[in-house]
Amino acid sequence: MNLSVENKIKNKIEEFIGNLSQHGKTDDGGITRLVYSKTWTDAQNLLVNKSKEIGFDSNYDEVGNLFIRLNGTKFKNETILTGSHIDTVVNGGKLDGQLGIVGGILAMEYLQETYGEPLRNIETVSFAEEEGSRFPFTCWGSKNIIRNIPKEEVTNLKDQDGISLDEAMRGAGFKFKSKESVRTDIKTFIELHIEQGGVLESEEKEIGVVNYIAGQKRFIVNVQGVSNHAGTTPMELRKDALHGASKMIINIMELAKEYGDALVATVGQIEVSPNTSNVIPGKVKFTMEVRHIKNSVLMKFAEEMSKNIKNIGQEMDLKVDIENHQNFDPVPMDKDLVSMIKNQCEETGVNYKLLASGAGHDSQILAPYIPTAMIFVPSHKGISHSPLEFTETEDLLKGIKVLIDILYKLAY
Amino acid sequence: MNLSVENKIKNKIEEFIGNLSQHGKTDDGGITRLVYSKTWTDAQNLLVNKSKEIGFDSNYDEVGNLFIRLNGTKFKNETILTGSHIDTVVNGGKLDGQLGIVGGILAMEYLQETYGEPLRNIETVSFAEEEGSRFPFTCWGSKNIIRNIPKEEVTNLKDQDGISLDEAMRGAGFKFKSKESVRTDIKTFIELHIEQGGVLESEEKEIGVVNYIAGQKRFIVNVQGVSNHAGTTPMELRKDALHGASKMIINIMELAKEYGDALVATVGQIEVSPNTSNVIPGKVKFTMEVRHIKNSVLMKFAEEMSKNIKNIGQEMDLKVDIENHQNFDPVPMDKDLVSMIKNQCEETGVNYKLLASGAGHDSQILAPYIPTAMIFVPSHKGISHSPLEFTETEDLLKGIKVLIDILYKLAY
Repeated sequence: MNLSVENKIKNKIEEFIGNLSQHGKTDDGGITRLVYSKTWTDAQNLLVNKSKEIGFDSNYDEVGNLFIRLNGTKFKNETILTGSHIDTVVNGGKLDGQLGIVGGILAMEYLQETYGEPLRNIETVSFAEEEGSRFPFTCWGSKNIIRNIPKEEVTNLKDQDGISLDEAMRGAGFKFKSKESVRTDIKTFIELHIEQGGVLESEEKEIGVVNYIAGQKRFIVNVQGVSNHAGTTPMELRKDALHGASKMIINIMELAKEYGDALVATVGQIEVSPNTSNVIPGKVKFTMEVRHIKNSVLMKFAEEMSKNIKNIGQEMDLKVDIENHQNFDPVPMDKDLVSMIKNQCEETGVNYKLLASGAGHDSQILAPYIPTAMIFVPSHKGISHSPLEFTETEDLLKGIKVLIDILYKLAY
Repeated sequence: MNLSVENKIKNKIEEFIGNLSQHGKTDDGGITRLVYSKTWTDAQNLLVNKSKEIGFDSNYDEVGNLFIRLNGTKFKNETILTGSHIDTVVNGGKLDGQLGIVGGILAMEYLQETYGEPLRNIETVSFAEEEGSRFPFTCWGSKNIIRNIPKEEVTNLKDQDGISLDEAMRGAGFKFKSKESVRTDIKTFIELHIEQGGVLESEEKEIGVVNYIAGQKRFIVNVQGVSNHAGTTPMELRKDALHGASKMIINIMELAKEYGDALVATVGQIEVSPNTSNVIPGKVKFTMEVRHIKNSVLMKFAEEMSKNIKNIGQEMDLKVDIENHQNFDPVPMDKDLVSMIKNQCEETGVNYKLLASGAGHDSQILAPYIPTAMIFVPSHKGISHSPLEFTETEDLLKGIKVLIDILYKLAY
């Protein structure tokens, strides 16, 4: 790829992302684009028009996933899929999701201009929904591609205005799948995405090659002490649930650090009762979630953490109850694809890092069914789900170039 | 006092407290009796009728403090005052406040029956208000006795229904003091009260002789970190405000313990932002209050605490802001009165403890103007401001007996 072509693509990236980001633009420069809303429809239609301009066919499936297609000449039943999701969180950034779609379309355009028609079909998908921001159901788009979701599973989902998923879909011109059907022609899925963390930037890596999407265990910890008068209860007679919870939180953080970089544990939410300045806290409830790429490590951490927390409770004469209310298994990316991307980086002198994704992605939905891999580009300061989400166009281009190379290897 | 008299008083305590507690009774056996409400008026009127029955005069002052009086024969301008407050917190107990009034009236009755008229007047006051539960202004009753509260100071106070203090007062048949006036005849105030803490019970003491009402310093601590994705931010790159706050809380608790029993520090209220299970907490705000009987100790603690908290902030790369938003000076009780009560306990074989009150009381309002002391009885499990507030009648009687002895010494 010569420099003038690079510059041409760079300009296109900025223009394309800029245009898409008009749909759902918020006052502070972010995007709110909830699935099946007007801004969502506008963004999907922009993609349809953009594809038409370039000369690609596009089509929606029944639920509103949009596919932009470059037809293959030889293996007409084999499709190499790339892309990501078009919806955002409330006041999210311009790259989470969009980058994968913009990158896919620009890669297809470059490949067609440079090499003509591929042997296999290449498609860029704009998934209807991934974030779960409107309805409490993540990856609605990608899930519909590879499995049949029973209507009962989603029939009670309502958005904040009480609108059901069914109504929202119909309002945007879509509907539940009319019959059981899954795509069988997709042979590979490659998702280009921002890291949403600060590892690549802090280690000065250009590309992240994702080997795993981390699994998660989520807990709710209840600590029960005795609420009492702040002025009349000596320190030694207190059963202060917040004092206990503080010790537990520090213990969790230190245990997580002992496990090393591959594990993250977070206490994000805490509720104190009665939560009054002059009353000793009687009850504390806090969430704890831990993520790692190996279930065995998650189990071991959970076990140690539970033991430690119970010990702290016992030492401080507090009742402790630990509820493990959600578990997500780690999802490995396809080994051959991961090797292919690594090799490609090595061959082209790209400074890459093999890393796990701590965040969830459409790739984890497809991976159990279709060989799948992810390419990460750095996120400035690791900020995501925020109007401040940012990556230099230079860095976005590097990601798109790797995607181009991989799509070429797979489809030509 | 012979055994049959003791039993007679015991029965009267239970009956009197039982009758009073009908006014404002809550479903779970507590009392809600807010100043100037119907239940408050009913309780005050019960005291008027009870006094009439026994043969005591009673009179309200303009704001609704009720005085029940046994006239002295010699020093007619000298009054020995006892009593406490008639209002309660929302769903409070049957003893906080009421005990001092019931005890005062029963002591006066016993003294008159046994020794006839005193040399000095004895009065039991039922203070209109102490808790600050209806209007955010504590000790309204006792403050009105010893100083003139400018109308402007309370004119904007509203209860939860938007009713002003003025309206509430007028609704109950009272009003702001019509002219500047304070009581100059009161020579001593003795308040009988439950401990509201667990010290006497845990040390198996029958009586607490209060030497100080503790001073207080109240702080708000703001900890600012960086809110970030729980899955994609390695432990070492985090600026977790809750992790930092947890360390600070533990440090505060440990520092308080180092200072020994006379000091208590409490972190009762905490607010975490964004308070979502899968986001690293970016901001934490928590309250810290410390109580001790010496201002110098409060100052020293506050200084050390601030230094430690700032150090923790610095180590964890968190911004810390500590605001000292309220200070209450410690109030000493009258030394001669404290000695008199101690000696009385020693002479009559009462197992007493000299202790500071961590809670605020009407006594702290009167003490700077009038020689004042407090007598505590134990609180079961230290529970107060709760329907579970409880003290054995046997223990209440012991308190009333000390009160009787002291009133005798002062008035006869």
